[in-house]
Amino acid sequence: MYQAEMTIRARYGETDQMGFVYYGNYASYYEVARVESLRQLGMTYREMEAMGVMMPVLENHSRFMMPARYDELLKIVTSIHEKPGVRIRFKYDIYNENGVHIHEGETLLAFVNIASGKPCRPPEMFMKKLEPFF
Amino acid sequence: MYQAEMTIRARYGETDQMGFVYYGNYASYYEVARVESLRQLGMTYREMEAMGVMMPVLENHSRFMMPARYDELLKIVTSIHEKPGVRIRFKYDIYNENGVHIHEGETLLAFVNIASGKPCRPPEMFMKKLEPFF
Amino acid sequence: MYQAEMTIRARYGETDQMGFVYYGNYASYYEVARVESLRQLGMTYREMEAMGVMMPVLENHSRFMMPARYDELLKIVTSIHEKPGVRIRFKYDIYNENGVHIHEGETLLAFVNIASGKPCRPPEMFMKKLEPFF
Amino acid sequence: MYQAEMTIRARYGETDQMGFVYYGNYASYYEVARVESLRQLGMTYREMEAMGVMMPVLENHSRFMMPARYDELLKIVTSIHEKPGVRIRFKYDIYNENGVHIHEGETLLAFVNIASGKPCRPPEMFMKKLEPFF
Repeated sequence: MYQAEMTIRARYGETDQMGFVYYGNYASYYEVARVESLRQLGMTYREMEAMGVMMPVLENHSRFMMPARYDELLKIVTSIHEKPGVRIRFKYDIYNENGVHIHEGETLLAFVNIASGKPCRPPEMFMKKLEPFF
Repeated sequence: MYQAEMTIRARYGETDQMGFVYYGNYASYYEVARVESLRQLGMTYREMEAMGVMMPVLENHSRFMMPARYDELLKIVTSIHEKPGVRIRFKYDIYNENGVHIHEGETLLAFVNIASGKPCRPPEMFMKKLEPFF
Repeated sequence: MYQAEMTIRARYGETDQMGFVYYGNYASYYEVARVESLRQLGMTYREMEAMGVMMPVLENHSRFMMPARYDELLKIVTSIHEKPGVRIRFKYDIYNENGVHIHEGETLLAFVNIASGKPCRPPEMFMKKLEPFF
Repeated sequence: MYQAEMTIRARYGETDQMGFVYYGNYASYYEVARVESLRQLGMTYREMEAMGVMMPVLENHSRFMMPARYDELLKIVTSIHEKPGVRIRFKYDIYNENGVHIHEGETLLAFVNIASGKPCRPPEMFMKKLEPFF
C-alpha cells in the first residue's frame, strides 16, 4: 500500500449557505490530494500529461460523515491499496482540525494515451516509483 | 417512481484542459437537476429551507461513461425510486446532444431540522406531492 | 449597440456562508451571458473556436451593488457598445427577481488565433452578424 | 503600506479547455491571498466573522497579462496601500513560476455588522495590528 498525507484549507468560496463546505467541492479536494500524493512519490501529474498519458476519472464515491467548515485546515490521507494496471484506485480520508474523521472518498481513474484516446499501461517511470509499495 | 427531466448547458469554466467537463462539476449538475425535479413537482428547495428543513448530502456516487463537452445541451433525467423516509435517494442519468447515455449518478440526502441540527421527517407538504408516485 | 437578455438561476453551490452568491461566481455568469448573447445573434463561441479563434479575457471589472440570493432567477442584460476590432468589450447588468439592478460588470476580450497564439481580427461571419448594430 | 506574500498551486479543475486557469477563478485566488495576508498579520477572517463583522466585496478588478497554467506554483503579493476606514482596498500581483508578473487585481470590500447589515468600522483589534504600517 502507498499512503501520503497533505493538508488543504477550506476556502470561503467553497462554503455554501448551510455554512459548510459544499458537497460538490470534495472532488476538487481529492484531485489536489492525489496530485500531491504523486508529487511526494517523486513525479507529477503534469509530467504524466507531458509524457502523453492522461488520467480521466471513471468513478467517484463520497461519504459525508460530518461537515467541513470555512478556514479549517483539513488533513487528507490518500492511499493506493492495489497495484495499478490500466486503472488505478485512490482512497481519501479527511480529518478536521479536531482530528475527527469526517469524510471518505474513492476515485477510480484510467490511464489513457492522449494521442490515440485509448486506455494504456501507466508510464514505466510511474510503475517503478510505486513498485516498492506493493 | 417519480421522474423529471431537464437540460443544462455545459459552461466554459466547467471544462478543464482535457477539453471535457471537469469531473468535479457533476455534483453541481446533480444539484440543479434535483432542485428542478422538486420544482416540477410543485415545490422548491428554497421553500424547504424557509420551512426550517435542510437537506445535506450523505453519499454521492458517480460513473463517468463518456465525457461531456463545452456548450453541449445535456439532458438530465432525475428519478426517485423509493418513497423517502428520513433520507431520500436521487438518481441521475445524463445524455449528451446525440442522445448517448454518458453518465450515471446517485445522491443520498438527509432531512435535517435547521434549528436543532437533528434528522427529521420531510415536510408534510413535500410528502403529499410525492405520494401519488409511490 | 447590440443588446441581448437572458436569465440564470443561482445555484446552491454558488452561494457562500454569507448566504449570498459568492463574488467569485459572477465571472462565470458573465461567460454564460456573453455566450448566450452571441447565440441569439446567430453564432456560438463553440463555432468560433472550431474556426480557429479563441477569446481570452484581458480585463474584468465588477461592481456589487446588492447581493444575489440562492435560487433567484437573475436577469442579465449583455451589451456591446462599440464595434469590435481586435478586442471586444461586453457590459453586463444584472437584475434580481424584484427587478432591482444589483450588479454591473464589464469584460474586455481579445480575438486570438489558436494556432499562432497571436491577436487577430474577429471571424468575418461574426462581423457580418454584428455590423447592423453599429 | 502593508504587504504579504503567499503561494497557491493551480488546480486541474481550475483550468479550462484553453489549457489555462479559467479567468473566473482568480477572484478565488484573491480571497485566499487576502485571508492569508490577514493571517500573517496575526488575525483571521474567521475570527472577524465570529466578532460579528463580515466583509462583502463591493468592487473587483482584474487585468490578465499572461495566462497561468495547471500545477504552477503562483506567487501572490497582496498589499494594502491606504489605511482602511469603513472600506478596505486590497491589491494583488501574481507571478508565475518563472517570476513573470502575469496578473494584477484589486478588490474593494466593506466592513458590515452581521447583525444589523449596516456598514461599520473595522474591529479595533484589526486596526491595532494594521496601524504600524501606515
